[in-house]
Amino acid sequence: MTAVPSRLNIVTLGVRDMPRMRAFYGGLGWVERPGGSHEFAAFLLEGIVLALYGINDLAGDAAPGEPLTKHGWGGHTFGLTVVGADEVDEVVAAMCAAGARKVGQVVDRPWGGRSGFVADPEGNRWEILWVDGVNATG
Amino acid sequence: MTAVPSRLNIVTLGVRDMPRMRAFYGGLGWVERPGGSHEFAAFLLEGIVLALYGINDLAGDAAPGEPLTKHGWGGHTFGLTVVGADEVDEVVAAMCAAGARKVGQVVDRPWGGRSGFVADPEGNRWEILWVDGVNATG
Repeated sequence: MTAVPSRLNIVTLGVRDMPRMRAFYGGLGWVERPGGSHEFAAFLLEGIVLALYGINDLAGDAAPGEPLTKHGWGGHTFGLTVVGADEVDEVVAAMCAAGARKVGQVVDRPWGGRSGFVADPEGNRWEILWVDGVNATG
Repeated sequence: MTAVPSRLNIVTLGVRDMPRMRAFYGGLGWVERPGGSHEFAAFLLEGIVLALYGINDLAGDAAPGEPLTKHGWGGHTFGLTVVGADEVDEVVAAMCAAGARKVGQVVDRPWGGRSGFVADPEGNRWEILWVDGVNATG
């Protein structure tokens, strides 16, 4: 039996408004890889690729014939760790300045860190977090 | 203005049945990090952490007061690249043997690779893919 590699190296978001979403992630200063098109964009984030792809095309591959519930919150978050508690507040502010929406407050967490949540223009949730004793790349 | 680090190093899935989901990901041979609990588990995947967390707890942080649409398909996929076209079929089979559900067929794609989709026990989509000319870590 082939082993399943312990690897997750691409996150693809099905997007409804590609120009808006591309502008948001590009606006963070994230660099798009060559080879994109009007329907696909890829950003290389320290070894993982964040890809944007038209949601109807993605649905055709990933969930053919199934209902799409791309409204409300889909039940997952993406984490971005930073190296100090103060940087949590600063990065949340920077993401909001780029067009994200703040969700709740940035607070000290019972697990010994500090974090805050933001939503990108289509509602995908990012948690910006500092974890005491863990470096930025976890 | 603080820059936003170009980093995505944690993916957290809100889960409904933690024992089942923990068993599925552990059953792939993925190693859980120390420090988990009955409500939290973390697997280290080549620099990114895949975390499992009770969906009601996660919702309380990430989407307080918002409707949860954790049914159907949430509009995103996770990619796992492999090093050869044949390995796509093998890894899809291995994931299904561990309890995943195959979605559609494994096929050669118009972008020059081969891929297939599976759903984990709670419907989160993984694409196992081989991309001609791109190494396993993309």
